Amino acid sequence: MTGNERRTVTDTGGGGRRRSETTRTAILAAARERFAADGYERATIRAIAKDANIDPSMVMRYYGNKEGLFAAAVSVDLKLPDLSRLPRPEVGEALVLHFLHLWEENEVLTALLRVGVTNQAGAERMQGIFGEQLLPLARQVCPDPEQHPTRAALIATQLLGLALTRYVLRLPPAVALRAEEVVAWLAPTVQRYLTAPNP
Amino acid sequence: MTGNERRTVTDTGGGGRRRSETTRTAILAAARERFAADGYERATIRAIAKDANIDPSMVMRYYGNKEGLFAAAVSVDLKLPDLSRLPRPEVGEALVLHFLHLWEENEVLTALLRVGVTNQAGAERMQGIFGEQLLPLARQVCPDPEQHPTRAALIATQLLGLALTRYVLRLPPAVALRAEEVVAWLAPTVQRYLTAPNP
Repeated sequence: MTGNERRTVTDTGGGGRRRSETTRTAILAAARERFAADGYERATIRAIAKDANIDPSMVMRYYGNKEGLFAAAVSVDLKLPDLSRLPRPEVGEALVLHFLHLWEENEVLTALLRVGVTNQAGAERMQGIFGEQLLPLARQVCPDPEQHPTRAALIATQLLGLALTRYVLRLPPAVALRAEEVVAWLAPTVQRYLTAPNP
Repeated sequence: MTGNERRTVTDTGGGGRRRSETTRTAILAAARERFAADGYERATIRAIAKDANIDPSMVMRYYGNKEGLFAAAVSVDLKLPDLSRLPRPEVGEALVLHFLHLWEENEVLTALLRVGVTNQAGAERMQGIFGEQLLPLARQVCPDPEQHPTRAALIATQLLGLALTRYVLRLPPAVALRAEEVVAWLAPTVQRYLTAPNP
């Protein structure tokens, strides 16, 4: 083995899979720290590779580009409330309020939405968050298990649509809405999507 | 003037502004044709520049990248129905149906949403379409002029949110919804955003 091979960590040959795992773990740990410290826009593949002591070409080889690396590295906990503990008529309002606060304080979510729209790994990440975090919410409220995926998808159309227009596309009157207005208008929609009988 | 300067069309010196306008017009015309013929993904700056008989570097200078060029070139007519001719209780359903057909037959809209999410020129283009085409819709239905921007923004949160989850992020249960289900669930929402009293 030459010094050069040693420096860039190859994953071919015996023990390659384990070495590859180690490399990926190091890259993801460095990426998480960098994205958290510098934000999505300013974090560079070069800086992340340097932090992980790995050649930038290896980062590109595993994750393709910054979007792919971000989608693989970022962990998103929506910290959704337990709706089963709330009076049924209040779940819509609770969810809209929670979601508004979440987006206003967490720029990672805006970055993830951008990446999800343009990058296959990002879209899969969004699909994963939907399945793991939003779908269980419908389970807490809807009696009919067959309806859970539809109900969760419906609230996603409204809540992600709010995020898209207000925080990403920044349509002026969507930005101008006060939080109380957003809740007053959207809570009945989310409430209906979660709890109304099938139309 | 050298042959090289002649080939790449500079816009400095006397008459520069007019020459620059001519160059931009030629680029945009070529871009519109290419995007329509090849679709957003396959159309390249190089091919568009060749069609327009202009150096690719000039295209980059004016529009930055493919996203910026697309945002400047693409013309979007949502062909929205005249809601003032419909019975008031039917406007929500008409709008959701129109919007569903529009997105299913028009891949330019999906491309524009992707570009709007990642590119400033694309976001401004979406803001323009909102102001020129969606805002007048609220004027046809709401009596209070002060409410028009809010009403239009609210229907944008729901209709763009549907497009985002169903056609771009492709969340499986949003993709699986039949058109009739989408209309049955979303029409009352859009109806309320357009016509319900201020909450």
